[in-house]
Amino acid sequence: MAAATSSATRFLAVPEWKLGGGATLRELKVAYRTWGTLDREGGNAVVVCHALTGSADADQWWAPLFGSGRTLDPARDFIVCVNVLGSCYGTTGPASLRPSCDEPYGPGFPTVDVRDMVELQGALLRALGVQRIRLVLGGSLGGLQVLEWAATFPEWVEAIAPIAASARHSAWCIAWSEAQRQAIFADPDWGSGWYPADKPPRAGLAAARMMAMVSYRSRDSFEHRFGRREAAASLFAVEHWLHHHGQALTDRFDANSYVALTRAMDRHDIARGRGSLEAALRSITQPALVVGIDSDVLYPLEDQREVARGLPDGRLAVLSSPHGHDAFLLDAEALDRLLVEFRDEVDPRARARRVAGTAR
Amino acid sequence: MAAATSSATRFLAVPEWKLGGGATLRELKVAYRTWGTLDREGGNAVVVCHALTGSADADQWWAPLFGSGRTLDPARDFIVCVNVLGSCYGTTGPASLRPSCDEPYGPGFPTVDVRDMVELQGALLRALGVQRIRLVLGGSLGGLQVLEWAATFPEWVEAIAPIAASARHSAWCIAWSEAQRQAIFADPDWGSGWYPADKPPRAGLAAARMMAMVSYRSRDSFEHRFGRREAAASLFAVEHWLHHHGQALTDRFDANSYVALTRAMDRHDIARGRGSLEAALRSITQPALVVGIDSDVLYPLEDQREVARGLPDGRLAVLSSPHGHDAFLLDAEALDRLLVEFRDEVDPRARARRVAGTAR
Repeated sequence: MAAATSSATRFLAVPEWKLGGGATLRELKVAYRTWGTLDREGGNAVVVCHALTGSADADQWWAPLFGSGRTLDPARDFIVCVNVLGSCYGTTGPASLRPSCDEPYGPGFPTVDVRDMVELQGALLRALGVQRIRLVLGGSLGGLQVLEWAATFPEWVEAIAPIAASARHSAWCIAWSEAQRQAIFADPDWGSGWYPADKPPRAGLAAARMMAMVSYRSRDSFEHRFGRREAAASLFAVEHWLHHHGQALTDRFDANSYVALTRAMDRHDIARGRGSLEAALRSITQPALVVGIDSDVLYPLEDQREVARGLPDGRLAVLSSPHGHDAFLLDAEALDRLLVEFRDEVDPRARARRVAGTAR
Repeated sequence: MAAATSSATRFLAVPEWKLGGGATLRELKVAYRTWGTLDREGGNAVVVCHALTGSADADQWWAPLFGSGRTLDPARDFIVCVNVLGSCYGTTGPASLRPSCDEPYGPGFPTVDVRDMVELQGALLRALGVQRIRLVLGGSLGGLQVLEWAATFPEWVEAIAPIAASARHSAWCIAWSEAQRQAIFADPDWGSGWYPADKPPRAGLAAARMMAMVSYRSRDSFEHRFGRREAAASLFAVEHWLHHHGQALTDRFDANSYVALTRAMDRHDIARGRGSLEAALRSITQPALVVGIDSDVLYPLEDQREVARGLPDGRLAVLSSPHGHDAFLLDAEALDRLLVEFRDEVDPRARARRVAGTAR
C-alpha cells in the first residue's frame, strides 16, 4: 500500500474542448490535485467535487474528511479534486486569457453547464488512467456535479454522495442567485463584465457574497454566534462579519466567474435531455448516500428527499446541525462519520482497509 | 352605529418632535387614514401598523381584513393607519424638504427607531381624541410597532396582535437587511445618499428589493409558482418576477427611506431601556395574539414562540401557509379568521356587534 502522499496543484493541457452548448474552447488548462496513489488496476479513485467559490485544495476546505479511518484515506484511495471549468483557481475560466491573445475572455466566456464541468473532469481522470471510481462526493455545487457524474458515467462511477444539493436547481435557488448577480450588475465597475483586472466590481461582488453568506447559514447559527452584540458603535457584530466575508471574496474571486458559475448552477437539471426527472433519477443506479442538512435554508430537505426517493439505491441521511447549508463544511466531522459508514456499507474493501489502517 | 366610511389621506402638522436619540425634528407632517367613526367616548379605536414599504392605505394592502364580520369593521371600529416616520408616503422622512429649505434631509435625516414611530402615532391618536385602543395589529415592521405600542402605552392599548414579527431583531434579520443595504451602497448613484431626486440609485435599490422578495417568500411557494419555467430565452420566470418587483420598488420608494427604515428595524429591541427581555415582555400584560407563519424564513416561528412565551397573556397562533413571510398579506383571509376569533374572545362587545352586523 502506498504511503499517504499529497501533491501541489497540477495542470492538464487540453487542446480543444467542445461544450454542450455548442461552443468550442481551445488550449484549456485543467487544475487538479491528487492525494494517494492510483493502484495498478486504476481501481481506487475517489473524486471530490468543490463548491461555488472552492478550489482543488480539498485537503484545506475539507480537512476533517482526510486521514486514516476517514472518508478520504490517501493510504487507501487515489483522491482527485479538480477545479471546475469557469472558475478562477487554475482551470480555464472568464479571467483566463484567450489563446494567442492578451485579453481575458471576460463576459465573452462561453456558457458552461455543470455537465461540461463533469465531462472535462472525466477527461482528466481518463488521462490519469483511472479505471474505476469508487465514490464521487461533494456538497452544494459539488453535489450537483456528483449527480451529473453518476448520470454521465454510469459504468465508471460505483457510488455517489451528493450533499446539500438537488436534482435540479429550484426556483428558490435561482432567485437567490439572480438577486446576487443583480447586486454585481448594480456596481458601475462591473461595466457589463469588461472590467480591468485591477478594477473589478468589488462593492457589488461583496454585496453578492454577503447575500450568499446569509443563505449559507441559519437564523439559529447567527443568533447563537452574534445575537444583537455590537462590534463597534452602530455596527452589529453580524454586520461586521458580513463585511469581512464580502471583502474577503473580492480579494480572491473573479466577478465574471461568480456570474458564470451561478448561472451554471441555475441551469442544473439532471433531467435535461434524459426524459422526465423520474426517468433521469431512475437511471442512476449506483448506491447513493443523499445527505441533507436539517437547517439548510438554500437547499432544504425537500430537495434531498426528492433525490433520495427517485434513486433506485438511494438513502437519505440527515445531518442535524444549526449551521445551515454551510454545515457540509462546518460540521465536516459529523459528515465524515456518515460517509465512512456509507463507504463501509457499499464497499467492503474500503471497510477492510480502513480497519486495517486504523489498527496500525 | 355609524355607516362605514372611508377617507382620503389626511395630515397632522407637528411643529416640533423630539426623537428618542436626542435629535429634534421641526414642522413634521404625519400622514394617516381612518375608516369608520370615533364613538362619543373615544373608545372604539383600532390601530393598524404597516410594513417596511407600506403606506397608510391599509384598505388596499389588507383589503380582506376590512368589512362587516371582519377584523376591521368600519361600522363598529374607528380604524387608524399612520404612515411611519422615516417613510416616503406622506409622513416626514429623508425625502422630505428640511423646514425653510429647498433641500431634502437625505442621509442627514436623524436616526429614528420603531419607538419613535409609535410615539408619534400616539400623538396623532391623542389629537384625534382617542381614549381607548381596542386593538393594535400589524405584520413584519408593523408587528414590531405593535409590541412597542403595547409597552409604550400600557394603559391605552387593550389588546395586540403582532404578526410575523419578533421581540427584537435577530442577527439573521440584521444580516438580511445589511446585505440589502450594501447592494444599494454598491450603486454609484447612491452617492452616500446625496442623490438627486431624478437620479436615485435604481439598480442598487432594485437588487436590494429582489433579495428582500426572496426573504418574503419560500422555497415551496417559488417552486409551485415558477419551478424551472422560462419567461424568455435564458430567463427563468422567477428571475423575470424578481426583476419586475425590483424595478417596481424603484418607481415608488426612496432609497434613503429604505436604509433608514431597515436600520430602525435592526435597532428594534423591546427590552432596550426596559431591563431584560423577560422583564420587558412580562410588562406587556394585554391579551395578545402572536401570529407566526410556519414557512416564514425571515421571522421564523422561533421568533414568535419567544414573544408568546414571554407575554403573560400571550397565545401563539400558527398561520399555515406555503407563502413564507408574505403570507400575512397573501393569506389575509385566513389571517382574518384568526384575528376575528381573537377579537371575539378578548372583546365581547366586538363579537356582539360583529354578530349583529353580519345578521343584517
